[in-house]
Amino acid sequence: MSKKAEILKLLKNSRPEYVSGEDICQKINISRTAVWKHINTLREEGYGIDAVPHRGYRLLSVPDRLYPDEIIDGLDTSFVGKAVYFHDSLISTNREARDLALGGACGGTLVVTEEQDGGRGRMGRGWYSPRGSGILCSLILRPDIEPGQAPPVTMLTAVAVSSAVEKVSGLAPGIKWPNDLLLDGKKICGILTEMNAEMERINFLVVGVGLNINTDHFPEEIKDVATSLYLAGGSLVSRLDVLRQYLKEFEHYYQQWMEYGFGPVLDEWKKRCVNLNRPVRISTPREAWEGWAVDVDSAGALVLRTDDGELRHFVAGEVSLRTV
Amino acid sequence: MSKKAEILKLLKNSRPEYVSGEDICQKINISRTAVWKHINTLREEGYGIDAVPHRGYRLLSVPDRLYPDEIIDGLDTSFVGKAVYFHDSLISTNREARDLALGGACGGTLVVTEEQDGGRGRMGRGWYSPRGSGILCSLILRPDIEPGQAPPVTMLTAVAVSSAVEKVSGLAPGIKWPNDLLLDGKKICGILTEMNAEMERINFLVVGVGLNINTDHFPEEIKDVATSLYLAGGSLVSRLDVLRQYLKEFEHYYQQWMEYGFGPVLDEWKKRCVNLNRPVRISTPREAWEGWAVDVDSAGALVLRTDDGELRHFVAGEVSLRTV
Repeated sequence: MSKKAEILKLLKNSRPEYVSGEDICQKINISRTAVWKHINTLREEGYGIDAVPHRGYRLLSVPDRLYPDEIIDGLDTSFVGKAVYFHDSLISTNREARDLALGGACGGTLVVTEEQDGGRGRMGRGWYSPRGSGILCSLILRPDIEPGQAPPVTMLTAVAVSSAVEKVSGLAPGIKWPNDLLLDGKKICGILTEMNAEMERINFLVVGVGLNINTDHFPEEIKDVATSLYLAGGSLVSRLDVLRQYLKEFEHYYQQWMEYGFGPVLDEWKKRCVNLNRPVRISTPREAWEGWAVDVDSAGALVLRTDDGELRHFVAGEVSLRTV
Repeated sequence: MSKKAEILKLLKNSRPEYVSGEDICQKINISRTAVWKHINTLREEGYGIDAVPHRGYRLLSVPDRLYPDEIIDGLDTSFVGKAVYFHDSLISTNREARDLALGGACGGTLVVTEEQDGGRGRMGRGWYSPRGSGILCSLILRPDIEPGQAPPVTMLTAVAVSSAVEKVSGLAPGIKWPNDLLLDGKKICGILTEMNAEMERINFLVVGVGLNINTDHFPEEIKDVATSLYLAGGSLVSRLDVLRQYLKEFEHYYQQWMEYGFGPVLDEWKKRCVNLNRPVRISTPREAWEGWAVDVDSAGALVLRTDDGELRHFVAGEVSLRTV
């Protein structure tokens, strides 16, 4: 832990009381000048810190930022999110995570940013997330599996985000196959998983999540299809609480997957799915099919019963509900 | 084509005659000084060029180097190897190709080097290739397929290399599942395929080949398991001829795969395979099995009939022949 993080922790633990500069010096073993410098840095980062002669420093407020020290503080996981890379702005967290992974970053490493100027969804689509309004993060994973076994991780992520959102906000997002999260029929979360692999084993996976939390409006062209926890529930939600809960849920389901296979996670996924047992239309780049979405198989493929009774498995595609 | 490449082509086409400096200036539209500079560069690259006053320049010899101009000269493909990146030395051609692909390099792009100081085989193993003795190259591919459909590309590459070696040298390497090429029971070629993908589609594949051609000795610790075309056949073989032929064969089988699926390539692979219909032992990181290698399935998995008659499919593992 850095000296700055130690000071912050001391201030937090002493709330609402003051801590004297003298005490900080002694407990953290730094000079008065160093204390003063770190306090100034914390203030620049947005922490509200009161300083009164002869009494010392007191923490008044914590900024709504996804700083590593804040994420790790109270994070209840064994490996997910134990290393955090925060950037005020990035082209994309997936790209940053990929570069870190290529450089050897370990599984569980988290990349988080307040703003992306090149964020992407699946198939190269864009992702709208105004500065500080949501969670933009990517996890590096190094499971000992083959490339063909990777797709469940995206569905696992959908379950983890949905579960975290529900526990923190009380709102229960539905999952639209394969991996969109919806509230009021509008999208609140996108997930993009990328992999680097040999034919027989994965080198690493990067799981990116874009989650709309306190966004208060969307551009005209997407306002009918996008929403946020704030717009859906009417109140602001702590991004830090959601992120920490997500990391915890993710680790839980990831370990379940590694230990027992995909079955238990798939069951959770199905419970939250809004597409199943409904008439749907599924479009792939080459063709479109209509029928009933009767199941999702153990590989994560959507099983469609077409109007002539045939069962077809779709690994990829766009699903829309249809009226019958 | 660069001015230097144009001069080289002119010299090649005029062999064994001289070309006057005057002619070069006119045909390529550059100054005498520029001609002289390019000739010097070509000589530095190892081209033997005779210069006689009042007669001009004459090409005496071409260096045994895998220069892009030499590779492309006479290359009979439509997209494979049409863009070539040559480096005198690299950490690894796969890594360089990956970085090019991340930067947007198109499918068919070839990276080639004379020397690697961080070359790897499958599962992180090393690859021995003294400077200028073999072919070290990587191809970037962008097939429109899912990650799980990628493994055939490694087997396709084994077929392409084997076929190219046979056509150029007359030696017919056998393929040891999954993708080693053998002569006299020793390895002459290693293939390492890596991918970058989303869950539903591949962004790109990089197929790396290390092929021992004119290597005249191997270190003590691998000399019983490694050989070269030179050691196996007794004569030097043109690296350029093998590389060009490989690119041509690769394109042929790749297009066949894309058009007709993996069946035809698999048939070729089986013809060249040395493991099939033999008693083998197969070791995975977790366990080892013995039995008869009865087939390779349409996904490239080795089918083993164990001693109690059960059929098991292996996607990965180390195979060794055993005596019964």
